[in-house]
Amino acid sequence: MRGTRALGCALGEEVRITVMGVLPEIRPGDDLAAMLADIAEDAGVAPGDVVAIAHKPVSKAEGRIVHLADVVPGADARALAHETGKSPQLCQVILGESRRILRRRRSLLVCETHHGFVCANAGVDASNTAEGTVVLLPVDPDASARQLQHALSGVAGGRVGLVITDTHGRAFRRGLVNIAVGVAGFEAVLDHRGGRDRDGRLLVATDQALGDEVAAAAGMLMGKASGRPAVLVRGLSTSPAPGTVHALVRDPDQDVFRAPVGADGVVR
Amino acid sequence: MRGTRALGCALGEEVRITVMGVLPEIRPGDDLAAMLADIAEDAGVAPGDVVAIAHKPVSKAEGRIVHLADVVPGADARALAHETGKSPQLCQVILGESRRILRRRRSLLVCETHHGFVCANAGVDASNTAEGTVVLLPVDPDASARQLQHALSGVAGGRVGLVITDTHGRAFRRGLVNIAVGVAGFEAVLDHRGGRDRDGRLLVATDQALGDEVAAAAGMLMGKASGRPAVLVRGLSTSPAPGTVHALVRDPDQDVFRAPVGADGVVR
Repeated sequence: MRGTRALGCALGEEVRITVMGVLPEIRPGDDLAAMLADIAEDAGVAPGDVVAIAHKPVSKAEGRIVHLADVVPGADARALAHETGKSPQLCQVILGESRRILRRRRSLLVCETHHGFVCANAGVDASNTAEGTVVLLPVDPDASARQLQHALSGVAGGRVGLVITDTHGRAFRRGLVNIAVGVAGFEAVLDHRGGRDRDGRLLVATDQALGDEVAAAAGMLMGKASGRPAVLVRGLSTSPAPGTVHALVRDPDQDVFRAPVGADGVVR
Repeated sequence: MRGTRALGCALGEEVRITVMGVLPEIRPGDDLAAMLADIAEDAGVAPGDVVAIAHKPVSKAEGRIVHLADVVPGADARALAHETGKSPQLCQVILGESRRILRRRRSLLVCETHHGFVCANAGVDASNTAEGTVVLLPVDPDASARQLQHALSGVAGGRVGLVITDTHGRAFRRGLVNIAVGVAGFEAVLDHRGGRDRDGRLLVATDQALGDEVAAAAGMLMGKASGRPAVLVRGLSTSPAPGTVHALVRDPDQDVFRAPVGADGVVR
């Protein structure tokens, strides 16, 4: 899961991040890979590029849309709705997407999803969707990323990296950033320890979360407006690999903020 | 602290991130602002650009270097050294930089710094420094950023944004990303709600952590090798403001991961 190559890893001199063309409103069953390949081809996608796309069109193409009126809330969802002020139907959907709820305060629900992501509302998104519907994260975002990556690499004539992003809050920090929820075609985490760059300078970074850096960089341009969910990142040297977002996801039992802890801060 | 302008906020079509020239090894008392302005001028810095620089040269110029042999550890530091396997001197320095230690496990110390940052070892850095020394974060990174921003805006002939970065781990995620520890010249967090972009598309992002996005984007190119700690970011529309990293720092009492919590995840 981790890259160990030193030379040329993410060490270009210039990176360009370009908004790709407009995608139409995506519907379940749409061939998003073909549509994305079309706008990437128009944008001149080339081997070595990385494309970042927001998860919402991916989820919509995969039919990960729920009509809340069709949801029958259980007892847990009704209790959670009472405590949070959210609708019982929405709470049922959030519970269905969650391994567990890590923190609750008023309407805030910080969940651990079945993928292992920690985020508000288990990634269930009610913004920019049809009235009465919510959009879920893809069931297997790495598989979604691989499918898109395959189509893009086809039009590029060589390996293209692919990151599916979502916009998350963070512990300790205010404001939202884009992070990777699916990765294909490159190592999402790089270990530069002990290597040297092409000018012989010692590489000092360890465990660089390149997949999340790409997502955050793409977030500077992407997703603020509807219809422009995809950007092209050029000039980044990446390590070829199947790639997986799980390189970026900490196991719960390795995470000092999900482990039992004493008043002295010592993790049990 | 929060931008409310909608049009033109971070909505360019292309962002370029370019490595600036090499800085020499920085010594306490060096005029880093003048040195940075020189390499930024060579790189063609222009009004509207944002420059990101790693904290280490900033800290070194400000004399935030500690010779561990000069440190006299107290009883707390000696006890912490025993528990973590770190040296008592290093523990003393870390304790001095910390408001409190949030989590401990073996050698891992997750600290809340006096600035309010949550990071390993309170930002005390032993890598890429002279033998027997450690480098601390600037005392007031926003003030450091303002000073550099003033010099850069001078050579650019107009407002340049400035981000001082550090490389941090995250709760829940593996791998390190660059985040902002000091900001000057632009709003570090933007609120796009309800606005429209220049093509009339509805803006959907709320509380975009632009300062951290810039830091993460810069991290794709910066800091992996010594001597290249500064990058130029061009094409980003920012909201003019004095700017402060504190827009990006969550108050401890607003943070559900630092509040007392029950077994059911409900924050007390």
